[in-house]
Amino acid sequence: MATALIVLAAGQGTRMNSDLPKVLHKVASAPLMVHALKSGASLAPERQIVVAGHGAAEVTKAAQDWDEEIKVVLQEEQLGTAHAVAQARPALDGFKGDAIILYGDTPFIRPETLEAMVEARRTHDVVVLGFEAADPGRYGRLVMNGDKLERIVEFKDASEAERAITLCNSGVVCADADVLFDLIEKVGNDNASGEYYLTDIVGLAWDTGRSATAVTCTEAETMGVNTRAQLAEAEAEFQSTMRAEALENGVTLTAPETVFFAHDTIVGRETIIEPNVVFGPDVTVESGAVIRAFSHLEGCHVSRGAIIGPYARLRPGAEIGEEAHIGNFVEVKNAQIHEGAKANHLTYIGDATVGKGTNIGAGTITCNYDGFFKHHTEIGERAFIGSSTMLVAPVRVGNGAMTGSGSVITKDVEDGALALGRAAQVNKPGMAEKLFDMLRAKKAKAGK
Amino acid sequence: MATALIVLAAGQGTRMNSDLPKVLHKVASAPLMVHALKSGASLAPERQIVVAGHGAAEVTKAAQDWDEEIKVVLQEEQLGTAHAVAQARPALDGFKGDAIILYGDTPFIRPETLEAMVEARRTHDVVVLGFEAADPGRYGRLVMNGDKLERIVEFKDASEAERAITLCNSGVVCADADVLFDLIEKVGNDNASGEYYLTDIVGLAWDTGRSATAVTCTEAETMGVNTRAQLAEAEAEFQSTMRAEALENGVTLTAPETVFFAHDTIVGRETIIEPNVVFGPDVTVESGAVIRAFSHLEGCHVSRGAIIGPYARLRPGAEIGEEAHIGNFVEVKNAQIHEGAKANHLTYIGDATVGKGTNIGAGTITCNYDGFFKHHTEIGERAFIGSSTMLVAPVRVGNGAMTGSGSVITKDVEDGALALGRAAQVNKPGMAEKLFDMLRAKKAKAGK
Amino acid sequence: MATALIVLAAGQGTRMNSDLPKVLHKVASAPLMVHALKSGASLAPERQIVVAGHGAAEVTKAAQDWDEEIKVVLQEEQLGTAHAVAQARPALDGFKGDAIILYGDTPFIRPETLEAMVEARRTHDVVVLGFEAADPGRYGRLVMNGDKLERIVEFKDASEAERAITLCNSGVVCADADVLFDLIEKVGNDNASGEYYLTDIVGLAWDTGRSATAVTCTEAETMGVNTRAQLAEAEAEFQSTMRAEALENGVTLTAPETVFFAHDTIVGRETIIEPNVVFGPDVTVESGAVIRAFSHLEGCHVSRGAIIGPYARLRPGAEIGEEAHIGNFVEVKNAQIHEGAKANHLTYIGDATVGKGTNIGAGTITCNYDGFFKHHTEIGERAFIGSSTMLVAPVRVGNGAMTGSGSVITKDVEDGALALGRAAQVNKPGMAEKLFDMLRAKKAKAGK
Repeated sequence: MATALIVLAAGQGTRMNSDLPKVLHKVASAPLMVHALKSGASLAPERQIVVAGHGAAEVTKAAQDWDEEIKVVLQEEQLGTAHAVAQARPALDGFKGDAIILYGDTPFIRPETLEAMVEARRTHDVVVLGFEAADPGRYGRLVMNGDKLERIVEFKDASEAERAITLCNSGVVCADADVLFDLIEKVGNDNASGEYYLTDIVGLAWDTGRSATAVTCTEAETMGVNTRAQLAEAEAEFQSTMRAEALENGVTLTAPETVFFAHDTIVGRETIIEPNVVFGPDVTVESGAVIRAFSHLEGCHVSRGAIIGPYARLRPGAEIGEEAHIGNFVEVKNAQIHEGAKANHLTYIGDATVGKGTNIGAGTITCNYDGFFKHHTEIGERAFIGSSTMLVAPVRVGNGAMTGSGSVITKDVEDGALALGRAAQVNKPGMAEKLFDMLRAKKAKAGK
Repeated sequence: MATALIVLAAGQGTRMNSDLPKVLHKVASAPLMVHALKSGASLAPERQIVVAGHGAAEVTKAAQDWDEEIKVVLQEEQLGTAHAVAQARPALDGFKGDAIILYGDTPFIRPETLEAMVEARRTHDVVVLGFEAADPGRYGRLVMNGDKLERIVEFKDASEAERAITLCNSGVVCADADVLFDLIEKVGNDNASGEYYLTDIVGLAWDTGRSATAVTCTEAETMGVNTRAQLAEAEAEFQSTMRAEALENGVTLTAPETVFFAHDTIVGRETIIEPNVVFGPDVTVESGAVIRAFSHLEGCHVSRGAIIGPYARLRPGAEIGEEAHIGNFVEVKNAQIHEGAKANHLTYIGDATVGKGTNIGAGTITCNYDGFFKHHTEIGERAFIGSSTMLVAPVRVGNGAMTGSGSVITKDVEDGALALGRAAQVNKPGMAEKLFDMLRAKKAKAGK
Repeated sequence: MATALIVLAAGQGTRMNSDLPKVLHKVASAPLMVHALKSGASLAPERQIVVAGHGAAEVTKAAQDWDEEIKVVLQEEQLGTAHAVAQARPALDGFKGDAIILYGDTPFIRPETLEAMVEARRTHDVVVLGFEAADPGRYGRLVMNGDKLERIVEFKDASEAERAITLCNSGVVCADADVLFDLIEKVGNDNASGEYYLTDIVGLAWDTGRSATAVTCTEAETMGVNTRAQLAEAEAEFQSTMRAEALENGVTLTAPETVFFAHDTIVGRETIIEPNVVFGPDVTVESGAVIRAFSHLEGCHVSRGAIIGPYARLRPGAEIGEEAHIGNFVEVKNAQIHEGAKANHLTYIGDATVGKGTNIGAGTITCNYDGFFKHHTEIGERAFIGSSTMLVAPVRVGNGAMTGSGSVITKDVEDGALALGRAAQVNKPGMAEKLFDMLRAKKAKAGK
């Protein structure tokens, strides 16, 4: 059965105390909304619609940055969830199949849960996702009769018996698209808030000869984010899951609670991650690597057996080859560091290629930027770059070439050549002594 | 009503296992005693007296570093809390009004609590601060009769009924100063320890026709510090409060438990703080800044929209302008980095001014110290400092000026000028190959 | 009484999902097996035998790296614990005394516990270590009769009454060596797994007229490691103990949960450790030092009153003298930094000696490696190394000598001399302006 995803993302999120639309606040380096889209994407939906409202321009950009096929529709006024879903109708463009309603501020619904809802659709017209609440509080309650979901009752309208129900409404719905919009047209706003509630479609389904059921998930999956404190809790929850999965997959985390993954981090088996490592988005680490303490990785690839850190920063486009070493206070950006190459100390490698087995001395810098353009540095295989070499790009250092410490390299260096660019050392006997005496005298005078 | 603050800070704190007086151990970068003084300062007291004993010289220095108007008196022998308070009398110098007794090792009494005590003074002569203890253990108990505090009974002297009381004594007292010292004169030391207890003034108040009452606070406020483990707990408690406040104020903390604030850190709304950030004292971050992972800030100001880190260290006197960037492995001290300027990699900027929109290349160092004096570097607007430029202060680089990579700048550079200070590059064909061969042979020989 | 240690370390540890033998996974920088050996070493054993199986070569290396006197024997097939112990017999080489059986994946048995077992041997032939389990689950139960251990019953064979016993079997055994091997010979494998169980020796002891008893320890001591998640839990448990001990010993840990010790870290009283500090193996910090945030120490010695970090990396062989300072983004390896010397910023000091009171400028690098050999740099006392000095080893800078910023020092500098090695600065008026104009034009064109 074809599926269409409708993600409601129009709310302002007043309690976030933020100018940024709530759904764009991030967990594990991805906007909350992207977590919902990613979960829904597991169903390979034919259509993906985001219903935007507050901050629609930013929401649109974020949605399309994630997947350019997503359509964004505008809910100009916030008149309730049924109204929000109704806005998606034109963009569905005659779609036939199941529509699934997700929420941009509810990031953790699992693909397995959505699959169970789609499965339940075989026997019922409308499927609502419920959860057993430890403390049901003021959640809406799902009133079941066998496997039939008779209705959803809001807490304030619930009888004492109904309030005793612990199966609560997550708001997530799966229904035949035609049925859904037919029911939504019938939803009224004759209630205290004057809003059109999506939950009303359950009662309307039965009224119109359709059936409804519920599927349940864990309470953790339905965790919503309304405040920055809840955002931090969502982050903690997500990290906790990612860490447990990494351990399960054969990754060693010395201190799991100090490692922060992004939503899409991939780490191979037998890799060791020391304490205090932060992953930004789009990182892949192959098996058997070592990521040492205080390292920070974003948008990079680390190959088998490489050693990263401590205090290494890999930025987008860093590709670290097998058995290569990137050491302390070293930054690599948009650069290929080939097999067995080493840059162990105090170095910046940007917009560069470093060949196999090459050794980059401490303090080396690729001078890749002239204030307007970025230029490329190419370093061959088995080369030896002396400490504090400035490589003024565009420039090439050949295979097996060498540069002297402290050289500024502005011209290409041929294979096997030695390049030097430094002034001769001059020693001035006794001069330091004189300078010290002078400064000491000045200091003494100043101290008076 | 005028108020005077008396902070008892004479104890040794044997269980700290430390040479440092207990009250000088720090929580959130401030001595415990300063937390008590800061809390009391919210009442705008006319007099502030610290009663010192062990390590009096260090305690005096710390008190006056905090506020030079504080008077420190010496309690030569530790004869009990009433005796300690008595030492403050001469320094009060005829003061009329309310005296409030706080403790240098009890850092968390809230200003609101002290205000409630002052308020309660309107109807009673002596006001004692109590707390409902989850586990009253061996605390002294407050025996109430309606709103009257009849007496404070030590645990060991308490009847079974009294031991069942859960309202315990924090030791904090507010009383009319004249009444206080009159009562203290009457306190005896006829008890097991031979000490003069401040708690005795409650009974004496009723005996002399005065009245006493109690105000209550949370148990967390009365947390005292006696060991380094408790110091760490106090730190954790304080950090937890600061983090919750930051989230509430619209700051995003990706992983709140990894961010460490100082007691006086101010962070504006819509600022994002990534994991593993440490704030030392005296930091202000305006709104909409980003403090990336592994950054360390002390004594600095970060303006709106600036991006700091990862791995940035801002030291005292660093003033980072709007939209400026301070990147990885960059240290800034006593320097103004103006709007939109960037120092993104491996740089030390100390005792300097960097103009608007200027770009500082990787590896740049302001050579500000000659072993005796610190000198100033001035860099103009829209300048371009090439990588690994040494700026030997005092020196000025003009607006729109440029320095070549690897240059040592010892003389001023005019506006719009290019300064170079480097040797020409010489390539020696085949020389690296020869050197490698030679070294390889030597290595092979050494390996035999 | 002489003791011999037998550590069983042959298992594969399938649930670790690892190619590395389970006992070589590390807690606090030491293999699990080394924790067991270290614990047993407190008895000053005459013999130490490791029974290896899976990954025997790696296990052998790790055992002998720890103590070269350890003998490793091979258990070719994994036929049960009694069989494993039997393999150790030849290596014991006629040893007379107590044999103690420990497990390579059970790192936390305390020396005091082993001493209690040896003590209990005075009155019984076989001593088994038990623990009171909070949740006994499927552990084997110790069936006691007064101080007699009647037998060990496996959970699956236990009666309901026996299952109610909460004293469980840790597997650790102490017995007279001759008795032990005599009993082991009698152990059969007539059970569901077809394995020879060491636990059977208790019943066999009574059958052959010997006696058995149990000694108890805490459940935490018997914690075994079977998965990477359990490895992380063991690490957390161990760190928690180390942190509490440090606090008890008069060390200040601002945020104990962020400090990671190695199994052998020694930190002196009155030292302050800020948040986020990682210790690798073999570190000693004397009293009154300050280890600032984000520092990483391995194989080094820090003397009284030294200040390390933030962001300092001390590698093996770093010896930091009294009151010396190692600052941010500074790496020190195999180098003596003498009293009061300072290297505060962006520096690499490797294979070097730095004399008393010497100041190392920012960006200084000892160029110690030529691609084949490491060379030594010697810097005298009270010297002043200008920023970004390259010290091309082998080289010596004398007492009271000075180097100019940006110099490449390839020749020795005499005491009191000033060494310079840099090109003169040339200013080209208007040239930066022209370059900027040119680049701006090019950029504009590219943008079209």
